Amino acid sequence: MKKKEIRLRCWIEIDGVKFFGPGPAELLEGIEREGSLAQAAKQMGMSYKKAWDIIDRLNAQSKNKFVESFKGGETGGRAELTKQGKKFVTLYRSLEKKLNAVISKENKLLKLL
Amino acid sequence: MKKKEIRLRCWIEIDGVKFFGPGPAELLEGIEREGSLAQAAKQMGMSYKKAWDIIDRLNAQSKNKFVESFKGGETGGRAELTKQGKKFVTLYRSLEKKLNAVISKENKLLKLL
Repeated sequence: MKKKEIRLRCWIEIDGVKFFGPGPAELLEGIEREGSLAQAAKQMGMSYKKAWDIIDRLNAQSKNKFVESFKGGETGGRAELTKQGKKFVTLYRSLEKKLNAVISKENKLLKLL
Repeated sequence: MKKKEIRLRCWIEIDGVKFFGPGPAELLEGIEREGSLAQAAKQMGMSYKKAWDIIDRLNAQSKNKFVESFKGGETGGRAELTKQGKKFVTLYRSLEKKLNAVISKENKLLKLL
């Protein structure tokens, strides 16, 4: 029996350029959990530089910063989500849930296969 | 004023492999409109071979064919959607519409930017 499924990706663009999506969401959740950008990046198999670039872009392009970082130590210092960062990732995940709820109700499409 | 928008992509996988998405949907609609695979491919800037590979895969992996093709002539012959093909692309577009309706109601996320 073949496994058939409807998949979904949702992201935010600013002036036609990708700004936020599943990757940054996972990174923010990692920072929230670990209190460290280096640790969060590591768990995603992502380089520290790439993770920092993502956070830098998020911080630069919105009214308020997403992540507050505190320098220090060999581990790259401590990092935590701001109120803005927490709110944004929560709303994004909630939107994903709503979209997936629509998909889970869609049964005619897969029955054709 | 920056243009901020939520974007979405939705596709169907069979056993973890992409089976159907925006590209095949556009191709099927082109065939429906043009009655020709060659013409539909051309309008998408897609090679005839690639278009044929897509249709071949759609036809092979579902209970019923998506496209019926009739050989003949230099233009690659005539092609038309089967009942299955029409129904599938209609349901897919209708799902996209439902998902986009959810997105258009989401206003808190973009207001944070």
